[in-house]
Amino acid sequence: MKAVRLHGYHQLPVIDEVPEPTVQGPLDVVVKIGGAGVCRTDLHIIEGQWAEAMSPALPYTIGHENAGWVHEVGPAVTNVQVGDTVILHPTPTCGLCRACRAGQDMHCENSSFPGLSHDGGMAEYLLTSARACVKLDPQTRPQDVAALADAGITAYHAVRKAIPLLYPGTTCVVIGAGGLGHIGIQCLAALTATRIIVVDRNPDALKLAGELGAEHTVVADGGHVDAVKDLTGGTGADVVLDFVAEQGAEQDGFAMTARAGSYFVIGYGGTVHIPTLDIISTERNIVGNIVGTYNDLAELMALAQSGKVTLHTRTYPLEAAAEALGDLDAGRVRGRAILVP
Amino acid sequence: MKAVRLHGYHQLPVIDEVPEPTVQGPLDVVVKIGGAGVCRTDLHIIEGQWAEAMSPALPYTIGHENAGWVHEVGPAVTNVQVGDTVILHPTPTCGLCRACRAGQDMHCENSSFPGLSHDGGMAEYLLTSARACVKLDPQTRPQDVAALADAGITAYHAVRKAIPLLYPGTTCVVIGAGGLGHIGIQCLAALTATRIIVVDRNPDALKLAGELGAEHTVVADGGHVDAVKDLTGGTGADVVLDFVAEQGAEQDGFAMTARAGSYFVIGYGGTVHIPTLDIISTERNIVGNIVGTYNDLAELMALAQSGKVTLHTRTYPLEAAAEALGDLDAGRVRGRAILVP
Amino acid sequence: MKAVRLHGYHQLPVIDEVPEPTVQGPLDVVVKIGGAGVCRTDLHIIEGQWAEAMSPALPYTIGHENAGWVHEVGPAVTNVQVGDTVILHPTPTCGLCRACRAGQDMHCENSSFPGLSHDGGMAEYLLTSARACVKLDPQTRPQDVAALADAGITAYHAVRKAIPLLYPGTTCVVIGAGGLGHIGIQCLAALTATRIIVVDRNPDALKLAGELGAEHTVVADGGHVDAVKDLTGGTGADVVLDFVAEQGAEQDGFAMTARAGSYFVIGYGGTVHIPTLDIISTERNIVGNIVGTYNDLAELMALAQSGKVTLHTRTYPLEAAAEALGDLDAGRVRGRAILVP
Amino acid sequence: MKAVRLHGYHQLPVIDEVPEPTVQGPLDVVVKIGGAGVCRTDLHIIEGQWAEAMSPALPYTIGHENAGWVHEVGPAVTNVQVGDTVILHPTPTCGLCRACRAGQDMHCENSSFPGLSHDGGMAEYLLTSARACVKLDPQTRPQDVAALADAGITAYHAVRKAIPLLYPGTTCVVIGAGGLGHIGIQCLAALTATRIIVVDRNPDALKLAGELGAEHTVVADGGHVDAVKDLTGGTGADVVLDFVAEQGAEQDGFAMTARAGSYFVIGYGGTVHIPTLDIISTERNIVGNIVGTYNDLAELMALAQSGKVTLHTRTYPLEAAAEALGDLDAGRVRGRAILVP
Repeated sequence: MKAVRLHGYHQLPVIDEVPEPTVQGPLDVVVKIGGAGVCRTDLHIIEGQWAEAMSPALPYTIGHENAGWVHEVGPAVTNVQVGDTVILHPTPTCGLCRACRAGQDMHCENSSFPGLSHDGGMAEYLLTSARACVKLDPQTRPQDVAALADAGITAYHAVRKAIPLLYPGTTCVVIGAGGLGHIGIQCLAALTATRIIVVDRNPDALKLAGELGAEHTVVADGGHVDAVKDLTGGTGADVVLDFVAEQGAEQDGFAMTARAGSYFVIGYGGTVHIPTLDIISTERNIVGNIVGTYNDLAELMALAQSGKVTLHTRTYPLEAAAEALGDLDAGRVRGRAILVP
Repeated sequence: MKAVRLHGYHQLPVIDEVPEPTVQGPLDVVVKIGGAGVCRTDLHIIEGQWAEAMSPALPYTIGHENAGWVHEVGPAVTNVQVGDTVILHPTPTCGLCRACRAGQDMHCENSSFPGLSHDGGMAEYLLTSARACVKLDPQTRPQDVAALADAGITAYHAVRKAIPLLYPGTTCVVIGAGGLGHIGIQCLAALTATRIIVVDRNPDALKLAGELGAEHTVVADGGHVDAVKDLTGGTGADVVLDFVAEQGAEQDGFAMTARAGSYFVIGYGGTVHIPTLDIISTERNIVGNIVGTYNDLAELMALAQSGKVTLHTRTYPLEAAAEALGDLDAGRVRGRAILVP
Repeated sequence: MKAVRLHGYHQLPVIDEVPEPTVQGPLDVVVKIGGAGVCRTDLHIIEGQWAEAMSPALPYTIGHENAGWVHEVGPAVTNVQVGDTVILHPTPTCGLCRACRAGQDMHCENSSFPGLSHDGGMAEYLLTSARACVKLDPQTRPQDVAALADAGITAYHAVRKAIPLLYPGTTCVVIGAGGLGHIGIQCLAALTATRIIVVDRNPDALKLAGELGAEHTVVADGGHVDAVKDLTGGTGADVVLDFVAEQGAEQDGFAMTARAGSYFVIGYGGTVHIPTLDIISTERNIVGNIVGTYNDLAELMALAQSGKVTLHTRTYPLEAAAEALGDLDAGRVRGRAILVP
Repeated sequence: MKAVRLHGYHQLPVIDEVPEPTVQGPLDVVVKIGGAGVCRTDLHIIEGQWAEAMSPALPYTIGHENAGWVHEVGPAVTNVQVGDTVILHPTPTCGLCRACRAGQDMHCENSSFPGLSHDGGMAEYLLTSARACVKLDPQTRPQDVAALADAGITAYHAVRKAIPLLYPGTTCVVIGAGGLGHIGIQCLAALTATRIIVVDRNPDALKLAGELGAEHTVVADGGHVDAVKDLTGGTGADVVLDFVAEQGAEQDGFAMTARAGSYFVIGYGGTVHIPTLDIISTERNIVGNIVGTYNDLAELMALAQSGKVTLHTRTYPLEAAAEALGDLDAGRVRGRAILVP
């Protein structure tokens, strides 16, 4: 089969012909890929930023945002059958550790990360496990939902945690209306009645944010902290969802957070520098967020199938992976690039 | 001033000329009434059903669902000023007991209930306390929102408690799409992405329910428990909000509730008869609900002011109170009857 | 091997010689039994009360409260190894359904119940699954903890759910200080600072309750509802944990529950008859409880291993199963009877 | 009456003769002081650190940790009577803002802070409000509990928030076993079964910690982060309660926090510097804490009155305030210094 494989850091992956994966263990599942999302993390992988943390053996197939159809199942698999349409949780888990037994898939002590630690889904077939498969309505086109497997679950997970804080009359700031942020805005609008303020550098992204449910949009031009303060009567927002968390957003995000409020870190790259006096005198929280649970993904798919969350995508044939990565790097992708084998 | 006063049980209240109330205590507030809702409880009061529990001294002024403008304030009142538009929490509270200090206004150990225990709001002016006043946008017409003071807060309170149970992919059944239920449906649609099924005897009420956010409607014709089971793949609903809870609805409501689900009792009049084996073998809950907190009412007003909850009302002049009560009793009121002094 | 097998309802099980179980599936585990609790449910099984619900094929081996050592593991088992000391969650689960993925083992859509639905643990060996095994300190004697596998997890699960309601200054009533109740009292004392009142018919049980942490004990002699009211200044208890829930306890338990309080049903056999007016006017809850999660059992074992929960047990050789069942039925067992193969 | 008054920054307060306060407003309460705690914040006040934030008019009476007996009440006060023994919440609140209506006293929009913003309790009498008074058992000696009014409530509030995270099997690190920390350890032991590890520079403080419930103690000698890692199998603690949060503790505290864990900031003075990647990759939280609610103080008093939290105190006559402050500054106070008028 064809696969998009990385042979060395700082060079584009290439299309190789490799053997199709086959089921090895009793809970293994092989999925025929219908759509594989192209993510900024793929650019970071190529740059070598994940080499140390994940130590993949090169060459290997990238792609960690996948959906498709079940092609083969191991003998102990009971939740999906060959032919089922599925979207894949990004990190197959053991199901046996304390975190798994509490439903906290993202804290599994034994998880793997296809596309980062070993062969991923930019290929015709992917080897994963029963525990990663979320079964979908057979009408669903995998290429339409693949980006929910990673960008979507991460945004949904953060919003779901924030729901108890976002009762009517509150304000939520979203920093960054890109791949994750534009899903987060839709989740907020579907699951709460909070007032949504979106902050982004890009006026086009803000225009989209307005269409998706933002009541106010603010250009991140240096006056944005003050603008949020003005929109909130000087208090700041009850919750700030920071999908950027670098290049100063991480300081601005905390500064926009109201007394007794919570600043959710979702993006990364920057460093927070906060006096403990500022944390305690206002009793604010800084809340970490990473991917999400299996049930988060299932719930997000319910939102998507009822039309409450939709994705803007642009498809490329698998063979055009390099072009898609180039377009993403150059800022030419509107929404999410999806490879279709 | 004019007031709608009950002189004896089993006879209609009459319009009396009585002195205007004046501020007595430091936290007292006199409100000029702009709208007073006519509630089924008023009919029950006339029938004497509340005589023992509330022991009002006859004659007295009924009306427990009120909104208007602040007319006079006691010297310690700081949250509202003369002229402010306000809606009134139905039970002024002490602010000092454990329940008040936890924000649980409905469990105040020292609350009163104007319109039930003593003079209420079907009059030109009402004496209440600072703690009952929720300040509104001055553009708000009290007659448009008065029904949220009691019917609304009760429905909102129950829905708010159910939110954590109603993640995407769940189902919520609403039994009764009348005064409270039609507000509850709107709150569910505004605050969750659950699938809403509405059960009512009245096809007109179901038609309205469909417009307000119900995905499915079921006529309560004897086959409704089975119908809900069919719509939920045999499992029943994750949450059932029972705005009726009499005449068999209380048994049907529990029967419609799924394993690990919760049956919310909001209406009253019937009696639940449930084997403890049925409660434990499925780990179901039966959840009581009564009125709501001050902040519940404030949050509901935020929903109303953003257009997410709207009321169907029919106004009557104060002098036509008897006519309004008669129309309600005869089932001729569409939505809520509101007296406007 | 020897096994305690039921050949027909309404007759005592007998000791048979049967083949040892062996691993069949990839996640199977065979456990050498070190202790098997004798439970009132075993008496009910013999009486045929579970015949319809569980439909076991007779003859079969009873025993659903088991601990021992891992004897053989399937090829996909990673959480335990041969020789490990383990206690067994009573219902092996699929690990793949929504409930399992949320950690709600007791609501697994595909669980089984060894000892009720098929061969259980009153034998030398038991076939179970990896997901049922909680690994213990190798110093633990299985016979000392086996009763925590079912009686313990059920009591712990209910107490854990009640913790947020039981802040300092509250009162918790425990109805029934027997097998489950005496564990529940210890869990309450270890995990909260609530004031504990224990109600039981048996003065000996109340004496033990006082030693385990009860501040007040009340003989269930007909005046016990009034006694609890007196001890709580007339309000009733914030939480009532009813380990009996039959023979009137279920009505008394609700009657003892304070305004805004919660009545937890854990035992079964009776029927609650409650006017919906009583539920709503005080906003009380009735909370179902069944077994517990895998993590509940693991947490309870942490309590046990730190000495905060201890069991009173009386051991019998496996061959004396009939004697143990007879002693239990006749009320001659102090604490819990444990069969030791 | 005699009062300990600050006439200028950087100079010790002196004993002045001033008029006794009298009730002015309807909810005012004058308390005869029975004990006033001497707090490190008093030293900071003298150094001028609070001058800008609180802007008190000099001279004024310090003392923000007070208990005594009700001496006079305003006409609208209903929760206490003259002669009642009371402990005082440190920040009298308005009772009318959103935060007050939610029970979040520490976020009241209109609170004051006697002893910081105006005359406090190091005097014979203090003017406060009904909402600050927690009524105590008349047997209580105010001097024995006064330190719970500020040090105690702050420690309790943080522990109470952490309870849901501290199920059996978890580990909680307490950094700093001084005035607040030694109360926090007792609260943890009373309200959870978590394993407690205490870190402090002072071996004497660690000895006390061991007596109060710490299972392990660690000297903060530079190897303490590694020591905590070793005690937790390399993972770190589920919760870290940092009562220091300066001089590097704030970095160590986060470093000791396990994946999916929470670092509670209670002390202050330092600055956290944390890469957002470290926050998200492990999904850790940083949780602010400030004082506590009125009900927190009431609950803590329930713990104290049942003997589960006790204070080590050293009393001084009011006239010896300067000596007490000097002893505190010089590290000569064991436990808490209390002025007794």
